[in-house]
Amino acid sequence: MRLATYDDGTIDGKLVVVSRDLQRAVGARVIAPNLLTALRCWPSVEAPLRLLGERLDHGRAEDAVPFDPTRCLAPLPRAPQWCDGSAFLNHGRLMDLAFDKPPIPDFDTIPVMYQGASDDFLGPHADVPFVTEADGIDFEGEFGVIVDEVAMATQTAQCGKHIRLVVQINDWSLRTIGAREVRTGFGFLQAKPSTSFAPIAVTPDELGDAWRDERVDMQLGVWRNGERIGAASGREMAFSFAELIAHAAKTRRLTAGTIIGSGTVSNADRSVGSSCLAEIRAIEMLDHGAARTPFLKFGDRVSMQARFADGRDGPFGRVDQKVVGAGGRPEAAARAHSSDRGVV
Amino acid sequence: MRLATYDDGTIDGKLVVVSRDLQRAVGARVIAPNLLTALRCWPSVEAPLRLLGERLDHGRAEDAVPFDPTRCLAPLPRAPQWCDGSAFLNHGRLMDLAFDKPPIPDFDTIPVMYQGASDDFLGPHADVPFVTEADGIDFEGEFGVIVDEVAMATQTAQCGKHIRLVVQINDWSLRTIGAREVRTGFGFLQAKPSTSFAPIAVTPDELGDAWRDERVDMQLGVWRNGERIGAASGREMAFSFAELIAHAAKTRRLTAGTIIGSGTVSNADRSVGSSCLAEIRAIEMLDHGAARTPFLKFGDRVSMQARFADGRDGPFGRVDQKVVGAGGRPEAAARAHSSDRGVV
Repeated sequence: MRLATYDDGTIDGKLVVVSRDLQRAVGARVIAPNLLTALRCWPSVEAPLRLLGERLDHGRAEDAVPFDPTRCLAPLPRAPQWCDGSAFLNHGRLMDLAFDKPPIPDFDTIPVMYQGASDDFLGPHADVPFVTEADGIDFEGEFGVIVDEVAMATQTAQCGKHIRLVVQINDWSLRTIGAREVRTGFGFLQAKPSTSFAPIAVTPDELGDAWRDERVDMQLGVWRNGERIGAASGREMAFSFAELIAHAAKTRRLTAGTIIGSGTVSNADRSVGSSCLAEIRAIEMLDHGAARTPFLKFGDRVSMQARFADGRDGPFGRVDQKVVGAGGRPEAAARAHSSDRGVV
Repeated sequence: MRLATYDDGTIDGKLVVVSRDLQRAVGARVIAPNLLTALRCWPSVEAPLRLLGERLDHGRAEDAVPFDPTRCLAPLPRAPQWCDGSAFLNHGRLMDLAFDKPPIPDFDTIPVMYQGASDDFLGPHADVPFVTEADGIDFEGEFGVIVDEVAMATQTAQCGKHIRLVVQINDWSLRTIGAREVRTGFGFLQAKPSTSFAPIAVTPDELGDAWRDERVDMQLGVWRNGERIGAASGREMAFSFAELIAHAAKTRRLTAGTIIGSGTVSNADRSVGSSCLAEIRAIEMLDHGAARTPFLKFGDRVSMQARFADGRDGPFGRVDQKVVGAGGRPEAAARAHSSDRGVV
């Protein structure tokens, strides 16, 4: 089943079911007004939603319309929690280098995870506003899962069954700020502006064999201004999504709709490229003694699209966004920036 | 104006206005169904809510009932964001000692702030479930503010006007986990279970002269099992709430209802006591070479109540909670705890 959220002016948007070929969509308001509500009462809405999807796939859904990704918000425009792991060890080790910091203790045996803001996610084609290019604007291609309610201290073996949907994510990051914040011990806050999502959230069965060991065994294609810079596979996660959920739920309940991220998709094989610029820069530092690839500029475009091993496009749709100056008022943004106690 | 949220079975609860003497309450559903909605359309609801409060204070509100704090959820049972600063430098320096870590870089010139989970806040009299006493269960007495929408990169001078309500907070913390998480650079996650709130959120004018320089100049009384262990003043914040808001909004929009915390209230004058056990233990380490005060046990009670300089009780009401084992199934909790890759 493939679900998306159309912008209808409400805070949570309008739930639509998307056809398997991603060409058609049909509103699901009679079943649930929005995806957040659907996740809260999943046992009672899953079957009707699947039935609606089958009717859509067979051309029998009344009121079906062409699917328009530009009308999409993030599948969950706001979520109860956004907990983003760093489960690709290759990425973490390169980031230690990028941030010029010592290795994270127990990095390969205990997941690391930061709490992100979850009130203001961006849709797949929304412009992405930043205050200044000086903050080191970067992207992070990721996969993620959306869970229903998970009780405090749920064990890993029981966490997989709480995975309701799989999503594709661009976790925008500000590296100049991140390098400072990682040293405070309090984690990323200013370094993590609004996160973006591909339009379609899918049930794990949509991935077929590519959903394996609670990981997404697909390549995540990443393009900057039309140039492909990475196609790393999601299979190299050192921790499964079930393990990441157990980590997040260890001392707290996760309410339905919580999103758990994989962290930047990254492979030991460098020939596949990278899912963020900071990794490319870290490799350049290793190979040439200095970073050569610049961070993003206003006007740059970033796209991401997952694909199966056989080359077919994945079911999440595409993220395709433009980096812009905040509010189109760069001078005001710059003033705000420089006035605040010299941060960055 | 004094606002509270009664539990009516909905996720956001039911908005009530409380009388100045905290003895009476009246439902405000005809004005706004809940506080989160009220904050989203504050300009149109503030005057009617204030009028209702005045009628209540003059005994002219129909349907007024005795105010019952045990019916209260947190003023916002869920919020868009919960960004907690560490604005009391005395606390931060003692915590460096407690966590046996080097000082935070630029701690006295740039605010530090962590992103907390904001989907599952606890009301003032709810039992507080924890998995195991071995995690180092502690409390943190704080003040906080709730803002309406703040645009990205809003300057400090413009942030004060976005403060709509002031709240009193107990930010429950797990110190054994915190000591590990602060070293990852990714910040606190497992170390910060659900946060608790005193029942009543108040507009700044309710504090009179005690609302000064965007700080709460009140003493926060803290009791463990009936023994008072602290009455530190909120006036020693190194950064005002306006500065903390500007910090949080530097690279992102804050949607209406975002809560900004002060961090643990802490004073340089040790005779006033502390607002958390970790500080007491750090001082014991300094004075005696070892911590003597234990962290909390299941069954312990923690209460907090702010008061004005003249000794009158503050308008937030009291937090009074019992620490309990998660789900009353300590053996299950312990199993879950020990199975997860030895975290803690």
